Amino acid sequence: MKKLNVGVLGATGMVGQRFIEGLEHHPYFKIACLAASDRSAGKPYREAAKWYLAGDIPKHVGDMKVELIGTGIIDEFDLDIVFSAIPSSVAKEVEGSFAEQVPVYSNTKTYRMESDVPLVVADVNPHHLDLVKVQKENRGWNGHIVTNPNCSTIGLVVPLKPILDEFGLEWVNVCTMQALSGAGYDGVPSMAAVDNVIPFIGGEEEKVELEPLKILGKMESGRVEDAGFQVFASCNRVASLDGHLKSMFIGTRDDFDIEDIVAVLQNYTSVPQELKLPTAPIPPIIVREEDDRPQPRLDRDAGRGMAVTVGRLRKKSEKKLKLTCLSHNTIRGAAGASILNAELALKEKLL
Amino acid sequence: MKKLNVGVLGATGMVGQRFIEGLEHHPYFKIACLAASDRSAGKPYREAAKWYLAGDIPKHVGDMKVELIGTGIIDEFDLDIVFSAIPSSVAKEVEGSFAEQVPVYSNTKTYRMESDVPLVVADVNPHHLDLVKVQKENRGWNGHIVTNPNCSTIGLVVPLKPILDEFGLEWVNVCTMQALSGAGYDGVPSMAAVDNVIPFIGGEEEKVELEPLKILGKMESGRVEDAGFQVFASCNRVASLDGHLKSMFIGTRDDFDIEDIVAVLQNYTSVPQELKLPTAPIPPIIVREEDDRPQPRLDRDAGRGMAVTVGRLRKKSEKKLKLTCLSHNTIRGAAGASILNAELALKEKLL
Amino acid sequence: MKKLNVGVLGATGMVGQRFIEGLEHHPYFKIACLAASDRSAGKPYREAAKWYLAGDIPKHVGDMKVELIGTGIIDEFDLDIVFSAIPSSVAKEVEGSFAEQVPVYSNTKTYRMESDVPLVVADVNPHHLDLVKVQKENRGWNGHIVTNPNCSTIGLVVPLKPILDEFGLEWVNVCTMQALSGAGYDGVPSMAAVDNVIPFIGGEEEKVELEPLKILGKMESGRVEDAGFQVFASCNRVASLDGHLKSMFIGTRDDFDIEDIVAVLQNYTSVPQELKLPTAPIPPIIVREEDDRPQPRLDRDAGRGMAVTVGRLRKKSEKKLKLTCLSHNTIRGAAGASILNAELALKEKLL
Amino acid sequence: MKKLNVGVLGATGMVGQRFIEGLEHHPYFKIACLAASDRSAGKPYREAAKWYLAGDIPKHVGDMKVELIGTGIIDEFDLDIVFSAIPSSVAKEVEGSFAEQVPVYSNTKTYRMESDVPLVVADVNPHHLDLVKVQKENRGWNGHIVTNPNCSTIGLVVPLKPILDEFGLEWVNVCTMQALSGAGYDGVPSMAAVDNVIPFIGGEEEKVELEPLKILGKMESGRVEDAGFQVFASCNRVASLDGHLKSMFIGTRDDFDIEDIVAVLQNYTSVPQELKLPTAPIPPIIVREEDDRPQPRLDRDAGRGMAVTVGRLRKKSEKKLKLTCLSHNTIRGAAGASILNAELALKEKLL
Repeated sequence: MKKLNVGVLGATGMVGQRFIEGLEHHPYFKIACLAASDRSAGKPYREAAKWYLAGDIPKHVGDMKVELIGTGIIDEFDLDIVFSAIPSSVAKEVEGSFAEQVPVYSNTKTYRMESDVPLVVADVNPHHLDLVKVQKENRGWNGHIVTNPNCSTIGLVVPLKPILDEFGLEWVNVCTMQALSGAGYDGVPSMAAVDNVIPFIGGEEEKVELEPLKILGKMESGRVEDAGFQVFASCNRVASLDGHLKSMFIGTRDDFDIEDIVAVLQNYTSVPQELKLPTAPIPPIIVREEDDRPQPRLDRDAGRGMAVTVGRLRKKSEKKLKLTCLSHNTIRGAAGASILNAELALKEKLL
Repeated sequence: MKKLNVGVLGATGMVGQRFIEGLEHHPYFKIACLAASDRSAGKPYREAAKWYLAGDIPKHVGDMKVELIGTGIIDEFDLDIVFSAIPSSVAKEVEGSFAEQVPVYSNTKTYRMESDVPLVVADVNPHHLDLVKVQKENRGWNGHIVTNPNCSTIGLVVPLKPILDEFGLEWVNVCTMQALSGAGYDGVPSMAAVDNVIPFIGGEEEKVELEPLKILGKMESGRVEDAGFQVFASCNRVASLDGHLKSMFIGTRDDFDIEDIVAVLQNYTSVPQELKLPTAPIPPIIVREEDDRPQPRLDRDAGRGMAVTVGRLRKKSEKKLKLTCLSHNTIRGAAGASILNAELALKEKLL
Repeated sequence: MKKLNVGVLGATGMVGQRFIEGLEHHPYFKIACLAASDRSAGKPYREAAKWYLAGDIPKHVGDMKVELIGTGIIDEFDLDIVFSAIPSSVAKEVEGSFAEQVPVYSNTKTYRMESDVPLVVADVNPHHLDLVKVQKENRGWNGHIVTNPNCSTIGLVVPLKPILDEFGLEWVNVCTMQALSGAGYDGVPSMAAVDNVIPFIGGEEEKVELEPLKILGKMESGRVEDAGFQVFASCNRVASLDGHLKSMFIGTRDDFDIEDIVAVLQNYTSVPQELKLPTAPIPPIIVREEDDRPQPRLDRDAGRGMAVTVGRLRKKSEKKLKLTCLSHNTIRGAAGASILNAELALKEKLL
Repeated sequence: MKKLNVGVLGATGMVGQRFIEGLEHHPYFKIACLAASDRSAGKPYREAAKWYLAGDIPKHVGDMKVELIGTGIIDEFDLDIVFSAIPSSVAKEVEGSFAEQVPVYSNTKTYRMESDVPLVVADVNPHHLDLVKVQKENRGWNGHIVTNPNCSTIGLVVPLKPILDEFGLEWVNVCTMQALSGAGYDGVPSMAAVDNVIPFIGGEEEKVELEPLKILGKMESGRVEDAGFQVFASCNRVASLDGHLKSMFIGTRDDFDIEDIVAVLQNYTSVPQELKLPTAPIPPIIVREEDDRPQPRLDRDAGRGMAVTVGRLRKKSEKKLKLTCLSHNTIRGAAGASILNAELALKEKLL
């Protein structure tokens, strides 16, 4: 199979770097173009990006010239698809203009909640990709936009999905303890992080409360009906580098035994696993039985950063469950999620 | 007024050090004896304790000889009261034997849930001190035991009290982000704390779920009737040095406006404030309006470590409230709570 | 005595905040005006500054309106002196224009190395203040400029002074482990600080190598002759909040016994101590005998942040000494140093 | 080639875990037996060890039963070689008894400085392995002991070797900033590490001052003549997890240009590289030209944790050099060094 030519928009930031890491040696995709704002454009990637991942930039990537973001790169580099990690402030126009010509797989929040744009976690709601047809019809685009949710939402919906399917959900109270990388390299000053916790992340609680309802909603006659439970979120920044930890209090519709919850989590599998997509984690959910897991440093790289690790399961009373889950925020929660969506789309012949 | 002679049991640990800090220059109390286990006994305090507080040990304290814990010190040092921060494994016998002769104000969990032992947060349930009479009658002790709760419980019950009084409580889901000092100086290895969160603290969730019900319970005819709401807790260790942060999701009995919640918190005052007890924080609850407060590093020392700081108040739907609160775990949550209880007891003529 | 009216230039940054902390309740000085760049000017201080110190902004300070930096404030607020913590990029002109009218005590590097500007650590080279006369003559200013050195230099020269006086110095190799606050609140991203050390601080090694030679130089006939030893510096950023730690390898001119080094350090005293200046630390140098001291968290606040703590003294061979020293970088190393210089200048009738 | 059967003594600690990681899938060696003290013996490795490395214990290793350390395991598991990471307090007897029968490659300090025991860094002084012949003759052992130095020493001697060869060395003043893992999982309490630096590591300065002289000494007629320069060390513990950073001030015998120093470092190669030993880093020394490298988090894993990264090279005056170097303390500085020594010994037909 000939690899598709990929453009990465917003290639120099932390999610951009994870795109490069995830696309390097990918069986379906090949990085053809790295694009960024005019602050970086024209420089070799090596100079434009403050590489924060351990080890060096892959040599050939470091030598690539960063292009200015603009639809001209589609023809110039013969792009088949673009991945986007651009700021939401410019995404409306930029992603829209790209989608007129090519498929856009985006981490940015801008289009997520639009009714004809799929908000997809490939192993949770793969069938929402069907919205692409509605979207293309609505908008007359040759390409399309598929979004993935906020980094915290992803870790949340993966374990909620099998619980919803089996026991139903009434409400979720979730307290996040999010890693520093979620704010970008310069996002959290060290003076704020050391010996401290910041009980606030701008706009995060709103996203975590809304996005799961769309993702876990039912796709019917060309639209998504939001799921019928309530999420209430408290989002905190802690001093870990990568890996968002979440304590979830969950009210189910039907009563349950803890063993059954463990079983539905452990046995959960979905379309990406069935299709054996290259970056699909097998299993998607890991249940740890130790008292003190999941821990960000030890568990974030499970499934090459794509698995969600769950632990601390406890029942308080009828229909009241508590668990702690962890997912890698810039892999599972960002670049890796987009790539998995694109892998799925390819198999579904949307690319 | 002649100061009372105080003995500190478990004087070398972190709570012991906070006792020394809090009793130094106290208007009612004077440190007469520092006692610890045989590992420390016989040495000058300076050598026995790994002083972890900034600055030096008060000079005269550093020179004091550490005594072996045993009731012999009551006569030897003419003790009027002892404060206890000893391990729970030995507290049953040790605290009991002291209480036969003198009042014991204890941080240790051992006696907390016994029906004739007051579990008191002085500005929440001061009237529970009346249990002392029942206790002395039951046990035939000349002294008595008054306990204060777990370091996480205290920060929880202070803001819950005015909400309970005004709006009633149905349930609380609380996620704690607790400081390292809560486990003692050697409690959490740095390899576990750096770039990490530990989603587990042994025995903590149980205490946080049970103790508030006794503290917020009604005292009637010589016994405490537990409060009628449910607490569900998830306890986590984060990399801050001092100051336990808690996200609380709260279901009230009656509906509320956020402004009313803010008002009842800000206007809350209690017996220690009315009596102008030396270490009573005024006000006991500080409500911060900034988006990003409370923060452990910035807010833990409010009210000389005795105030509870609350922020991030939000209503999700009818009767559903969220807030974040912070309290200093080794002052408000431990030594300072005991000292405030003793100040109250003195005014109530129990000492 | 009527207090002098003080203006603080660059009042919103971290050194600015330490100026406010140090001038609050000062017996000689009164904050009359807080000035900053146009980003902050016009706002109440409370809104303009991201207060990073524990506890709240002193209330009356929080309410003060921040003024735009400009010599107009001299008359408007009847200023007797200004303290400056402005960026070096604008200091040449701004500090110069102020000095035409009033004394300027500055943390900024711009004027430090000019031959007629005193670079003073009050307890090291108080007599260098005499340069002010030369400066006023040279420049025709009504005011004058007195500078204090870089935050790392200060902790270095204080212990070197008595060693130089007694044993002479040939060379110093110094490795600094500097705190995060030295770079300002937003200076070091948390992604760079957690689980890491940064072996570079822009411009720092040059300052640490040059400034001590001027400070420890001899004042003769209106000029300073640089001291005749060599400093070689390696500057590193570590994840402590405040307090610069330095390992120094020292080659002395004459041989020594360690006991003599300890003695000259412990017995050292200088003009600020003799004059009992309000913020002079007594003693200026603390020698700790424990193996594992000084430590930033435990020792930085010694002498209310103005003392330098020394430990780990060891002799390797003839004339080769090693020691570790610690000083608070934003108090002793910045705002506190300026204030102490001004206290000295007042006593010397330069204000 | 049939793989040699390996026993790991002290298998549950942090260096033990790195042995397992390094021996897993090794082309020459196969883990036949994991041994530890009686606290762990008899349990499955999974339960005995607090696995601190990211990801899970290799499954088959987790299932292995931990054996009690004792020479009985040599026959029982048909061991060809043992790697040792046992405490120095018991090493004299234990390692000696094993060496009577099989080759022992040890991280422990006990035998390092004995005159007939090679202290080897395979890419620095490979020829010192010849001491094994002397040792076997002296002691009448069937096996032998080969040691590798302290974790800080290794990072020091690798870059010193080419400088010594080309320019000679007079003295080295080194300030280490060592990672937490160097003290073992429970070695440094988080209360000591957060917002702090500890300027002391027990016994470390002595080792760093002595070991390099033996390693860089000349092997002549069956003994090692210590190198003729002086090392003066200041050892500090900082809050990074892995990777020891060192600032070195170096006095050379001959003068140099920085470019020449860079060249001899970059071009350095040794026997393990020539023999293409499986874990030999190629190149052994990486010179980074960025201002702010090496950094522990970014550079420790270079060469799969076996390379030494050097940066911040600067000349102060004739024959005075400064550089900063970094090496992974539990791989290059411990388990990896032993394994590389054993690979070399195998090729040299000592196994």
